Amino acid sequence: MLKDIMNKTGNLIVLSGPSGVGKGTIGARLLEKHDDLCFSVSATTREMREGEQEGVNYYYKTVAEFNSMIENNEFLEYMQVFGKNYYGTPRAFVVERLSRGMSVLLDIDVQGAKVVKANYPEAVMIFIAPPSLSELRRRLVGRGTDSEEAVERRFAQAKTELAMVNEYDYVVVNDDLDAAVEDVECILRASRLAGTNYKNELFEILNGEEA
Amino acid sequence: MLKDIMNKTGNLIVLSGPSGVGKGTIGARLLEKHDDLCFSVSATTREMREGEQEGVNYYYKTVAEFNSMIENNEFLEYMQVFGKNYYGTPRAFVVERLSRGMSVLLDIDVQGAKVVKANYPEAVMIFIAPPSLSELRRRLVGRGTDSEEAVERRFAQAKTELAMVNEYDYVVVNDDLDAAVEDVECILRASRLAGTNYKNELFEILNGEEA
Repeated sequence: MLKDIMNKTGNLIVLSGPSGVGKGTIGARLLEKHDDLCFSVSATTREMREGEQEGVNYYYKTVAEFNSMIENNEFLEYMQVFGKNYYGTPRAFVVERLSRGMSVLLDIDVQGAKVVKANYPEAVMIFIAPPSLSELRRRLVGRGTDSEEAVERRFAQAKTELAMVNEYDYVVVNDDLDAAVEDVECILRASRLAGTNYKNELFEILNGEEA
Repeated sequence: MLKDIMNKTGNLIVLSGPSGVGKGTIGARLLEKHDDLCFSVSATTREMREGEQEGVNYYYKTVAEFNSMIENNEFLEYMQVFGKNYYGTPRAFVVERLSRGMSVLLDIDVQGAKVVKANYPEAVMIFIAPPSLSELRRRLVGRGTDSEEAVERRFAQAKTELAMVNEYDYVVVNDDLDAAVEDVECILRASRLAGTNYKNELFEILNGEEA
C-alpha cells in the first residue's frame, strides 16, 4: 500500500551538461529500458516537417500562440534559436505526466536547466560531465561535423558550462556509457524514494490505519 | 580522474525506523556485498564480553572516559540504557572512515538518528518503513521473544516513530528484503554522485586542466 503512494507521482529529471558529453545517448538508453519514463515534448514555432506528429515530436504553435503561452507563464523554460524559431518546455505536459506517475526526462543545455530549476524547484538536476576536458575536446573533434572554429567555440562554451556543476544535485561522469546509464537509473530510483510529495500522505495512512 | 575525486569521500548513512522493521537485516546484507561500506563502531561503558574485541565490537570506556568524551563533543549521539550503561557513536571513527573513502552505516533508533543529523547535517537519512502497521504488529508478535505487553509497548512506540518520516531524506518500504536492499544500494550510489564535498575540486580540475 505504501509503495503505491510512493509510485503515484514521478519526478522531473533534468539531464544537462556541455555539448558532446553524451546526454542525449544516455537519455535514449533510459527511455528504452523504463516504461515509466518519457521525454518532455517541447512546443515550437518552427514548421512541422514530413513524418513529424503533433504532440509526439513537438507541439506546433504560431508565434502569437507561443507569445501568449510565455505571457501566461506556461513554460518551464523557452528560448529563441538563431533569432528565429522559438522552442519551449510546456509546464502542462510535464505536470500531467508526473500526475500519472511517470517521470519526465528533460535533455537541455545548462542555461535552460537553470531556468527550469527556478520554475520547478523539485526538479532532479543531473549534470553529465566528461571524464576530462581533453576527452571532451577529442569527442567534439571526433564528431567530424563541425569546423575547427566551431569545435573551439563549443569547447570554450563547455568550459563555461562546467563551472555550473555546483548548481546540480548529482554529477555523473560519462566515461563508460553503461556505467553512466546505471548511475542515472540509481538516481531515478533514489529520487522516487526521496519523494517529498508523498510523505504527508504516508504519515496519515500509518497513523490512521489500525492493525 | 574525476571519478577518483568522487569516490574519495564516503557518506554517513543513517538507517533508522521502528523496532521490528528489519533495518539490522538490511544493514547486514549491505555489508556482505559492499567492501567500501562499514558499520559504525560504538563506544560503551559496559564490560567487554568473552570473544569481543576493542575497536571491533565496541570501544570500551570507563564512565569517566565516556563523560569526558561527552564534554568534548566527541559523540554524534549517545544514550544511557536502563539508567546504567552508556552507548555512543564516536565522531572520530566516522570521520576517519569517510576520509578513507568508505561509507559508514549507522543502524539507530529514530531519536538517535535525529541527534546524528543535527550533529552531522551531511548524513544521508534513510527511514525503513513497514508495508503497513498491521504487518509491523505481525512481525513484532512473530518474533516470539516479547510478552504481549512488550509487543504493545513496542507497537505504540513504532507509531510515534513513524510520525518522524518527514525528517528523512529517503523512505524505503521493507515488504521484500531483496528489493529493500536494492533500494538502499541505489541510495548509496546516488549519494556518492551527489557528493557536495567534491564539487569545488571537480570545478577546479576542469578549469585548470588543458586539452
